[in-house]
Amino acid sequence: MPPKFSVSDLLAGPAAARFLDGFRPISCGRGEVLAAGEEGEDGVFVLLSGRLRMTLEGDEREIALVDFRSGDMFSLHAGCRIEALEKCELRIADIATFGEKLRDHPDLALALVSILGRTAASFLATIRDLMFRDVRGRIARFVGDRAGPSGELESSVEEIAGFVGASRQATSAALNALIREGVIERRRRGVYRIPDPARLATVVGDGRGRPSAV
Amino acid sequence: MPPKFSVSDLLAGPAAARFLDGFRPISCGRGEVLAAGEEGEDGVFVLLSGRLRMTLEGDEREIALVDFRSGDMFSLHAGCRIEALEKCELRIADIATFGEKLRDHPDLALALVSILGRTAASFLATIRDLMFRDVRGRIARFVGDRAGPSGELESSVEEIAGFVGASRQATSAALNALIREGVIERRRRGVYRIPDPARLATVVGDGRGRPSAV
Repeated sequence: MPPKFSVSDLLAGPAAARFLDGFRPISCGRGEVLAAGEEGEDGVFVLLSGRLRMTLEGDEREIALVDFRSGDMFSLHAGCRIEALEKCELRIADIATFGEKLRDHPDLALALVSILGRTAASFLATIRDLMFRDVRGRIARFVGDRAGPSGELESSVEEIAGFVGASRQATSAALNALIREGVIERRRRGVYRIPDPARLATVVGDGRGRPSAV
Repeated sequence: MPPKFSVSDLLAGPAAARFLDGFRPISCGRGEVLAAGEEGEDGVFVLLSGRLRMTLEGDEREIALVDFRSGDMFSLHAGCRIEALEKCELRIADIATFGEKLRDHPDLALALVSILGRTAASFLATIRDLMFRDVRGRIARFVGDRAGPSGELESSVEEIAGFVGASRQATSAALNALIREGVIERRRRGVYRIPDPARLATVVGDGRGRPSAV
């Protein structure tokens, strides 16, 4: 819903240095866990470069919710695991400092509206998946959402399983069925393509619990 | 995560009239549907008085996600049903107008950060419920979250079923079991009480898919 503002532009602008003053710099490498999703973690991060993934973990299952990109900011205490997908440069502040900064830099409140709106939309898509789509429908939704304009997607079975909230086995079986039926094409290991978006759309369905047969 | 700002205070202040200029006034009565969750709906609402409920609908099931109160604002095109729980006074603007207003009134961007943060947190709680709690655990979570400081909650089986995303029958059976076990007390029709918050907490569990036995 919110208007689009480029946070990266703001962070590259003259106000950025003043905004980031008082934040603690942190670097982390691929696979490093920034927040483990436990009680008592506090703070807000601003991601200057790299990619982070937020995942809700259970004892036996987990579901990936959203990826953060350069310029994004979010809470570290949402109760989720936040993990670096690649080398990341971040700034971290406690919530009180962040609140002050926000009041002093209204442009950044607009940027945060944009990020929160994107995150809320992503959470909503996950709820729709969990309520109304089977693993097959969720995979189709994930592939459709993530594929670039070329209709191609670089991903792994592990990553897809993470976002659909299913086991690697169940995901692999459903993905292979979709490939056999020609709904998704495997170009090479870890690279998928949508040969016919309209056909994929019938598998994605309208997210009301009645995905059409292919 | 976001700092708390009272939107109602802002809307009562001198900037409100200028902010709301260009918005369309709408009144609706209890049970009226403001957005049906279909494609093509557009706009943002500001709720001046009353309560609205946002629900994700499927063909056979639905799940209530969040209630909006006086001073809240949100998108009408999130793909969800938005329904008046009581008589409501609203202002509605298209997204372009709303974006301009937001740029001109940074305080309201802060207010929106607060609302979006609350909504995202509520969506996340629903995802945790759907992934890691059975109906019993979801009911306990709902009752615990909604009960006031007195430990009392006024609700109906229909409303509880809506928020846990289960049928009225399944909800009623699980609720009655919790009442029989003494985890939840029924004071009178539609009024529940938590006699022992620590005991309720064991049923709510840690939301990781392993709710403890009572």
